[in-house]
Amino acid sequence: MRVEYINPFIRSLNNTFRTMLSCELTRGTLSLVADRAPIHEVSGTIGLSGRAVGTVVLSLSRGVALRAASHMLLCEATEINDDVTDAVGELANMVAGAAKAELEDLQLSISLPNVITGRDYEIRFPSNVTPICIPFDTGWGPLSLQVGISVVDALVEAGT
Amino acid sequence: MRVEYINPFIRSLNNTFRTMLSCELTRGTLSLVADRAPIHEVSGTIGLSGRAVGTVVLSLSRGVALRAASHMLLCEATEINDDVTDAVGELANMVAGAAKAELEDLQLSISLPNVITGRDYEIRFPSNVTPICIPFDTGWGPLSLQVGISVVDALVEAGT
Repeated sequence: MRVEYINPFIRSLNNTFRTMLSCELTRGTLSLVADRAPIHEVSGTIGLSGRAVGTVVLSLSRGVALRAASHMLLCEATEINDDVTDAVGELANMVAGAAKAELEDLQLSISLPNVITGRDYEIRFPSNVTPICIPFDTGWGPLSLQVGISVVDALVEAGT
Repeated sequence: MRVEYINPFIRSLNNTFRTMLSCELTRGTLSLVADRAPIHEVSGTIGLSGRAVGTVVLSLSRGVALRAASHMLLCEATEINDDVTDAVGELANMVAGAAKAELEDLQLSISLPNVITGRDYEIRFPSNVTPICIPFDTGWGPLSLQVGISVVDALVEAGT
């Protein structure tokens, strides 16, 4: 994918954490996910379609998921329950939604968020799409953002 | 979600397995996923958007994933590698694609497939969406299909 597509997602992640959670992110080194970057315990995923198809994955370590959900729910979350996964899905939705608005030429629409939880899993993209992965630190623990996009004008013209 | 939306996915799953894999499916009892139906080791997920948003999850036990991929790759797959996850993503894509064509009024478009692999994970839908889960047996082992859809005319009219 083209690297310029990643910047709107980084900006929207920073804005979302700042405005929703009063949390400043420290960005780590951007990498391609060829080597399967580590995924954390709670991952919100959003599918994208339009003049491009792709997926955004916002993967939070347990501590970040609980602290973020506590902020959003206005009560202390101590376990990964439906309220917490809904909160993480909503964060992924906000990140994808704001980035979509910036990437106007791609005419993206976004799917429902799903949240994957567990201690032993990987999220794989199709092998012809190389997602970009950016690790961040939050002060509450690590998180990562992965974005994989493939531009598909031909598909759009065919009406899919 | 309305139960009539599930039938195109069931038909397309049956057709995909019959035509691509020469495999007849035996359908188990349809259930709501409120109790978190078991998810198998390799799950292809596809996001849907349009006049509805949602997700399709095709979750295959290890044996089914390997046998299905072996059929598609024309060589024996013995471990869950990128070729196998690409094959499972492609199966999910075919199931979603054929169902989308039947559900014309929802004007769905589909995202890239992602494939989640692992022995310990759950895939959660937003708590305001109750996905429908259908287990199947293949002769090669079990699989399940989960579909969660929420109709969003208001969103579509707002241009998202």
